[in-house]
Amino acid sequence: MAIIIKEFKKIKTKNGIFIEGMPGVGNVGLIAASYLVEQLKPEVFAELHTGYFGHAVLIKPNAEIQLLKGTFYYYKNRGKEIVFYIGDQQAISPEKTFDLVNKILSYLKKIGVKTVITLGGIQKGYPTKQRKVYGAVSEEKVKEKFKNLKIDFDNVSKDVGSIIGAVGMLTGYAKYYGLEGLCLLSESFSTPFVPDHKGAKALLEVLEKILEIEIDYSRINKKIKEQESIEEKLSKVPISQPKEEVEEKKLSYLG
Amino acid sequence: MAIIIKEFKKIKTKNGIFIEGMPGVGNVGLIAASYLVEQLKPEVFAELHTGYFGHAVLIKPNAEIQLLKGTFYYYKNRGKEIVFYIGDQQAISPEKTFDLVNKILSYLKKIGVKTVITLGGIQKGYPTKQRKVYGAVSEEKVKEKFKNLKIDFDNVSKDVGSIIGAVGMLTGYAKYYGLEGLCLLSESFSTPFVPDHKGAKALLEVLEKILEIEIDYSRINKKIKEQESIEEKLSKVPISQPKEEVEEKKLSYLG
Amino acid sequence: MAIIIKEFKKIKTKNGIFIEGMPGVGNVGLIAASYLVEQLKPEVFAELHTGYFGHAVLIKPNAEIQLLKGTFYYYKNRGKEIVFYIGDQQAISPEKTFDLVNKILSYLKKIGVKTVITLGGIQKGYPTKQRKVYGAVSEEKVKEKFKNLKIDFDNVSKDVGSIIGAVGMLTGYAKYYGLEGLCLLSESFSTPFVPDHKGAKALLEVLEKILEIEIDYSRINKKIKEQESIEEKLSKVPISQPKEEVEEKKLSYLG
Amino acid sequence: MAIIIKEFKKIKTKNGIFIEGMPGVGNVGLIAASYLVEQLKPEVFAELHTGYFGHAVLIKPNAEIQLLKGTFYYYKNRGKEIVFYIGDQQAISPEKTFDLVNKILSYLKKIGVKTVITLGGIQKGYPTKQRKVYGAVSEEKVKEKFKNLKIDFDNVSKDVGSIIGAVGMLTGYAKYYGLEGLCLLSESFSTPFVPDHKGAKALLEVLEKILEIEIDYSRINKKIKEQESIEEKLSKVPISQPKEEVEEKKLSYLG
Repeated sequence: MAIIIKEFKKIKTKNGIFIEGMPGVGNVGLIAASYLVEQLKPEVFAELHTGYFGHAVLIKPNAEIQLLKGTFYYYKNRGKEIVFYIGDQQAISPEKTFDLVNKILSYLKKIGVKTVITLGGIQKGYPTKQRKVYGAVSEEKVKEKFKNLKIDFDNVSKDVGSIIGAVGMLTGYAKYYGLEGLCLLSESFSTPFVPDHKGAKALLEVLEKILEIEIDYSRINKKIKEQESIEEKLSKVPISQPKEEVEEKKLSYLG
Repeated sequence: MAIIIKEFKKIKTKNGIFIEGMPGVGNVGLIAASYLVEQLKPEVFAELHTGYFGHAVLIKPNAEIQLLKGTFYYYKNRGKEIVFYIGDQQAISPEKTFDLVNKILSYLKKIGVKTVITLGGIQKGYPTKQRKVYGAVSEEKVKEKFKNLKIDFDNVSKDVGSIIGAVGMLTGYAKYYGLEGLCLLSESFSTPFVPDHKGAKALLEVLEKILEIEIDYSRINKKIKEQESIEEKLSKVPISQPKEEVEEKKLSYLG
Repeated sequence: MAIIIKEFKKIKTKNGIFIEGMPGVGNVGLIAASYLVEQLKPEVFAELHTGYFGHAVLIKPNAEIQLLKGTFYYYKNRGKEIVFYIGDQQAISPEKTFDLVNKILSYLKKIGVKTVITLGGIQKGYPTKQRKVYGAVSEEKVKEKFKNLKIDFDNVSKDVGSIIGAVGMLTGYAKYYGLEGLCLLSESFSTPFVPDHKGAKALLEVLEKILEIEIDYSRINKKIKEQESIEEKLSKVPISQPKEEVEEKKLSYLG
Repeated sequence: MAIIIKEFKKIKTKNGIFIEGMPGVGNVGLIAASYLVEQLKPEVFAELHTGYFGHAVLIKPNAEIQLLKGTFYYYKNRGKEIVFYIGDQQAISPEKTFDLVNKILSYLKKIGVKTVITLGGIQKGYPTKQRKVYGAVSEEKVKEKFKNLKIDFDNVSKDVGSIIGAVGMLTGYAKYYGLEGLCLLSESFSTPFVPDHKGAKALLEVLEKILEIEIDYSRINKKIKEQESIEEKLSKVPISQPKEEVEEKKLSYLG
């Protein structure tokens, strides 16, 4: 009873593309995937329930209890079929991530998905003007399909090196299910109360080309402006200076 | 062998109401449910055993070992059938709460329960004259059945927001079993050695109307008097004053 | 594959008595059960293997690897059949104790055991001249069978109250398998490098009468002498005095 | 879905020898086994996947995701069949090591392996000129087959005493699968960034005789030179001297 996928409607895609978003660095993957869901308004067709998301529930404004779950959405546009997965949580323990990943992949296989695209962030210690998007793949040949899309496959090993959590495992295990895996990793910088919308937009710009859709960026651009204004304020706070002054005084006291 | 429900008697209710009490904030749910069990004297018909309650046992005055378990009781009054569950413990790990909740709900489904009522507390930092009771539901339509009962559904999202533990999950997952879920959450304030009988009584007053029973409050009223007397004493202890005095002195020393 | 019982020989007892010893307070249960195994030289007929004992192994003087396991022994004397279990470890997590306990009990049921006797210790903060033995039972009626044996059933609830670990659960769950459970708990005092042989002997004296055997105490008496000599030395070490002297000096300095 | 062995090719050995390497003390086992794999170029025939290796993945220079896994290799030379297992990780929790070990052993049994050789290190607090290799066995009689090979079976109990992790359990549980187990433990000394190639070579020298192969040590000898040069530099850092001086001064102050 560890992980249950509850289907509301049977779906069978033909070479469907899978896009997932879950909490993570800067929440870039979750924001990007949720943004697409808001714009494309795909249909909910299944939910994933498990104890691996912890034992909390949320209460909605109408007093309804909202379980922490994963939601699967289906979208079809000009012959292109997309399956979205929005996960409210990552698995609470590393060893359960394996179970979650294999449960999702075997389900994707069953509903005819062909390509698995996962979204994540790479934490930077400072804000960058532009967020570079790195790519990692399930098998080298997959890179061919995603070239000329401003995805950096050349420096990902050197600059990133490893991925922690479901995103990397979903991509890596894809090949064992006969699927192609692409992991998009945006550079990310986030402050405690502001997730990284800039990083999410970088992912959206790549997804726009892959999915051959048109994205209205107005809402996320507004969020980015807010984010930049906070980052600018923070950059002016002289964090280390006062401490140095104190230390200098201490030293002069010794003299 | 993770969770076992041991039945002593087969029960089949017709639209039964389920009421549970487990340890939690102020122990209000456990106290309220146990109070009803003491008054209505329902029949024990099943026990739930699991390793998720830890590895301790209690020793009763007659030297008998008492296992930490969940106990199911059956009560019938004027066509109204109630199933009680008194849990000695919550599950020891978050991910096991999911298993516990689904085990209980699938069992309730099997024995014909229709409505799942869970009881919990919301920790306040100070004692309140009156304990407000909030409500959260499995689906919005369930609110209709419990209106005009002094349950606050309007502010629960804003004031409470989320619920940790089995209570919220039991209510939320109820709908996946075709059951209706109502979670009653009393404001609560408890001191280390005095659990919150006042909060428990607030829950009992709502349950009295839902279950159409009459409750004798004399015993809990006595407990509440004791509680109020302790709270009053505590309110006179000048907890923060001495600290402020010390700090003031320090400051004047600088001058 | 969580817990495996590997049988070397099929055993079927008629109303067999089960005695177990595992690590615990003062190691009294493990010492007492092992002492009986050494004296009675019962036959090994099964082993219990599990990951719940951790991932360490020991190396014997002949370079053989010794796994951490549970060992079952069979002994028959004048119609009395005894099954011993010596456990190298307790389960490493509370929730696994439930699985271990139920695995053992269901196996005991299968091989015809009727009475489950578990051995444990109650930590005292100081050495006692005599070690009292408390008893707790699976059901009140079991006390009858073990009266007039210097087992204190009257104060166990008040003096002990609860038991942590497999010992209590084995006794308590016995009744769900149609078995009678008796838990013997010796007062115990142990120092870091000397386990409590005195407490173990107190258990042996009770077991001698229950099992109607004759125990040669010479070896354990020798161990007890060593233990008493160490306890005596420790009792003469003025643990708190030097500290008080230092504090006194500090105070006088203020004067 | 806890542990999966994915076979790329069916293998059936006749009295095959199994050699494993996993991360551990000084990484001696992993280095030695990997060195043999590099030299003998055996064929990959299966992979072991599990959540017990954690939830990280690595990214290779070609942007491919590399899962943490166990890899099985097959090698045949003059009638001698060797199965290698290179594990990227040990199991993340002690209780899962049992599952991993039993999964591997039951698979080895199935593919006709007869002898299980495990490799590990014993941490020393200082570098030794020569690394002694200790041996521990599944059953005493196994020692006979590996005598006159400079494996110390006589002092392993006294000098080592216990083994933590999969290596010891693999050897010990071998006998329950009808296999013979030999655990080779090299003395080891490693510094944070330099694993112990010297200890690995000591293992290789023993394996060379057991497997009747010829090993080219040139590459590992180069690594050992680097290691020795670092160890020499470290040995000249007077770590403990200043502390002793300080203590001496304190003492003289008292005088």
